[in-house]
Amino acid sequence: MTPSQRVGLADDITERWATVRGPLFTDMYELAMAQVYVAEGISERRAQFDYFFRSAPDYGTHQAGFCVTAGLGPFLDWLDASRIEARHVEALAKMESTTGEPVFSAAFLEWLAAPERFDGIEINAIAEGRVVHAHEPIVTVTGPLAVCQLLETSLLNHLNYPTLIATKAARVVQSARGGTVLEFGMRRGPATGVNEGIRATLIGGCASTSNVEAGIALGRQPSGTHAHSLVQAYVATGGGELGAFRAMASSAPDGCILLVDTIDTLRSGVPNAITVFDELRANGHEPVGVRLDSGDLAFLAVQTAALLDQAGYPGAAIVLSSDLDELTIWQILTQIGDDAARIGVDPDPIRQRLVYGVGTRLITSHGSGALNGVYKLVGLENVNGSWAPAIKLSEESGKVPLPGRKVVWRLYDRRGSAIVDLIGLAGEEPLASDSTVIHDPSRSGVSQTLHRAEISHIEELQHVVDREPGSPSIDELAQRCSDDIARLDVGVRRLVNPHRYHVSITDGLRRLRDQLIADARP
Amino acid sequence: MTPSQRVGLADDITERWATVRGPLFTDMYELAMAQVYVAEGISERRAQFDYFFRSAPDYGTHQAGFCVTAGLGPFLDWLDASRIEARHVEALAKMESTTGEPVFSAAFLEWLAAPERFDGIEINAIAEGRVVHAHEPIVTVTGPLAVCQLLETSLLNHLNYPTLIATKAARVVQSARGGTVLEFGMRRGPATGVNEGIRATLIGGCASTSNVEAGIALGRQPSGTHAHSLVQAYVATGGGELGAFRAMASSAPDGCILLVDTIDTLRSGVPNAITVFDELRANGHEPVGVRLDSGDLAFLAVQTAALLDQAGYPGAAIVLSSDLDELTIWQILTQIGDDAARIGVDPDPIRQRLVYGVGTRLITSHGSGALNGVYKLVGLENVNGSWAPAIKLSEESGKVPLPGRKVVWRLYDRRGSAIVDLIGLAGEEPLASDSTVIHDPSRSGVSQTLHRAEISHIEELQHVVDREPGSPSIDELAQRCSDDIARLDVGVRRLVNPHRYHVSITDGLRRLRDQLIADARP
Repeated sequence: MTPSQRVGLADDITERWATVRGPLFTDMYELAMAQVYVAEGISERRAQFDYFFRSAPDYGTHQAGFCVTAGLGPFLDWLDASRIEARHVEALAKMESTTGEPVFSAAFLEWLAAPERFDGIEINAIAEGRVVHAHEPIVTVTGPLAVCQLLETSLLNHLNYPTLIATKAARVVQSARGGTVLEFGMRRGPATGVNEGIRATLIGGCASTSNVEAGIALGRQPSGTHAHSLVQAYVATGGGELGAFRAMASSAPDGCILLVDTIDTLRSGVPNAITVFDELRANGHEPVGVRLDSGDLAFLAVQTAALLDQAGYPGAAIVLSSDLDELTIWQILTQIGDDAARIGVDPDPIRQRLVYGVGTRLITSHGSGALNGVYKLVGLENVNGSWAPAIKLSEESGKVPLPGRKVVWRLYDRRGSAIVDLIGLAGEEPLASDSTVIHDPSRSGVSQTLHRAEISHIEELQHVVDREPGSPSIDELAQRCSDDIARLDVGVRRLVNPHRYHVSITDGLRRLRDQLIADARP
Repeated sequence: MTPSQRVGLADDITERWATVRGPLFTDMYELAMAQVYVAEGISERRAQFDYFFRSAPDYGTHQAGFCVTAGLGPFLDWLDASRIEARHVEALAKMESTTGEPVFSAAFLEWLAAPERFDGIEINAIAEGRVVHAHEPIVTVTGPLAVCQLLETSLLNHLNYPTLIATKAARVVQSARGGTVLEFGMRRGPATGVNEGIRATLIGGCASTSNVEAGIALGRQPSGTHAHSLVQAYVATGGGELGAFRAMASSAPDGCILLVDTIDTLRSGVPNAITVFDELRANGHEPVGVRLDSGDLAFLAVQTAALLDQAGYPGAAIVLSSDLDELTIWQILTQIGDDAARIGVDPDPIRQRLVYGVGTRLITSHGSGALNGVYKLVGLENVNGSWAPAIKLSEESGKVPLPGRKVVWRLYDRRGSAIVDLIGLAGEEPLASDSTVIHDPSRSGVSQTLHRAEISHIEELQHVVDREPGSPSIDELAQRCSDDIARLDVGVRRLVNPHRYHVSITDGLRRLRDQLIADARP
């Protein structure tokens, strides 16, 4: 198993990935609204929409203290590849109302089919792989109203799930405390959605995936050894577990990981594995390790480590799998400490040889299966070229989006830790005076004071998206993620009951929102 | 909104859907095992694998009493389209172990690249769309050992998630008690996986989807009207909510559904909608209805219905959306009964005009994000042509798969209700005598007696899969699902705390399993 190895991209697989979805991968109401805008002559009015989420995933017994944004690259690929063709127009032209009238007018379909329909929009975004928090505009789309509207569903689809999964992956990787985490979720994950999910797990810090196609497309050599069925096949035909292990070792003498729990882990699997490891070593090969896939993994890991040590394989890895997530890994590491102490051995060498195969609970974000990201109209250009901020009221006051053209700044303290993300209006200065009062974006009346002397560095998070081909590699995205997490306070990184990271809005933005709400109330 | 309308299939979209995944959409260890079988000369030995799940989805506070199988058709499409080509072989040939040796031998890659590599397998299955239960073999794959093994991950991926979602959809549809259910989940669902998920929701009984591409590919006209942003845009530019509604009505006079909660549902949205409905009617068009997307939906539905009735629109639909699932719909219907009684109106006409837009919680199977389906080796052909049943022991005794070549019978009582699914060995008779003792598949010692006189009909559930093109339409699959659910006891259909449907094994199968377990224990 060599998770960090790279394989050459298979261009055709990568290309197919980018074009899985067509230009009609969107919700019907986007087309219905675009048709209204075209009919009313306002389709080309410039508009601005923000993508943001309202709260970090809450897994029921625990909640994420931060998120990792993912999916922007594939969204841009989709956008580049999306061209409305005659076949799409034909399919739309066939749609009828209950009274038999066409749903879409010829005028609208002609507008839709214009060449480069999706050109002419500008995308500002926080770079993929960065740590992000609730309320902040992660992606801002500016362009013709009808075109911006058409992009809504696809943008949400491309970003919500990957951000959810990159976030979960970052948590799982953190729980492993330096241990390698492998993604194994294809078998129970959401059909083709696993491909985008796997990409997100690599951004979040997983070393590799079991999925061959995804590994090739993403440039990471996929990982995997054998299943119980290999042992079963040899048992059924008389070769037994030992025969299965010998066959596996013969086929992969330099990458041999044996699954030891098909019959009985400690009485059959590990002893048979050691027999085969001895044979491998006698032939000049070094075994890689064993995998445990059931039972009390912490107990079995301690016992397996002892058996491997006694046999002369202190370097053999122990791969754990079976319903792992960040809490089960934390529990396993804790229990290994207790169990090792009881039998008088040092737990650290055991922990350091562990590798984690994390499947279903990662690729489905167990406990919180969806991110509540939304895409909201925040501004519309007036006929005179000025911008009118847009507001959406709601029966729940915390859900009113932040209006207008905005900027997000990340403020770092003197130790280089990110301490607050501040959202302001375009043109504002983040720290205009020595002390600045900033406000909670959703809880009215909650504010704090920022002192300029405490701030060492201010980073503007959103940038104009560079649409050139050759987007950042998965390695670069994973590095961004890991760098950003390292700049978070340990309390924010905590798996359970994390510190609330401060996201605030400027006084100017708060006043604009309050004014618009007051104006809009009937 | 005309959910039952059909649109012509766009062949290219349908075709692209079928080939999203390539032949390497599988786990690395399947290839590793196939290589072992090729190297050891046993790759062509005939084997049998069963796909089954171990328990119905448990949503935390409630559990499904039955499942609906889905995904077989797309799996067969994938299988038909899967051809290993030179580019795939090249990508695999580049993979190396840590010591720089190729992971895959030239001999294995040559075997893999043989034309029609996936031919020569036979698939028996319970038809897609049928009600299924834990433990029963839903799909049985028979063929060369190495080829059957290669198919594992893709089969699991193609069936687990769609079966999970078809099951959730059937529950949501049941909770709606005849009300139309529309699928709206694309924006927060699992990236491209929503496409397979949407197909499953239609099998489970949803009338249509918001996703345009999916609607076209599946032959159902997609549904959708407008979002809050349309109203916001008109508010920001001075046209107000009324202006937005007029524009919408002008664009879709015969399909007009207005979203009434952008500003204030009862004080602004519904009155403005009624104004526009009057204008539509004056011009010879009949409005379709309104949509409520926030707040206390039951309360607002009762009030909205009263306002629409007073204005002369008793036939206008009320579409509800906002985090709906089977329990929230049940709660809304219950509360409407209470609220209507309190103000002295009949709740039934209100309930009958409701339409449900169900999004995130359906497409992610809220509360239970994965089905625990597995694919296990159950038999291997001996050199003499007889079959050796295969067993996999486990530290958890309930997880030992049922060995050997099996048959699944569904037994119906004199009222036509399905009362038990019985799993036996190929060649056995399901009811050989007047009374037959049958056994629980996982709880040792739990048995019951079947009396032949009580059984009116015995149906064999698995059939050889017909691989001809032109698989059943979504309508046929949905009909199968609905017919099967109608044949379940009401207690099994219950949303919360359902009756346990009896799945049993024959005495012969029980004895075979116990003997194999005894033989295999070390």
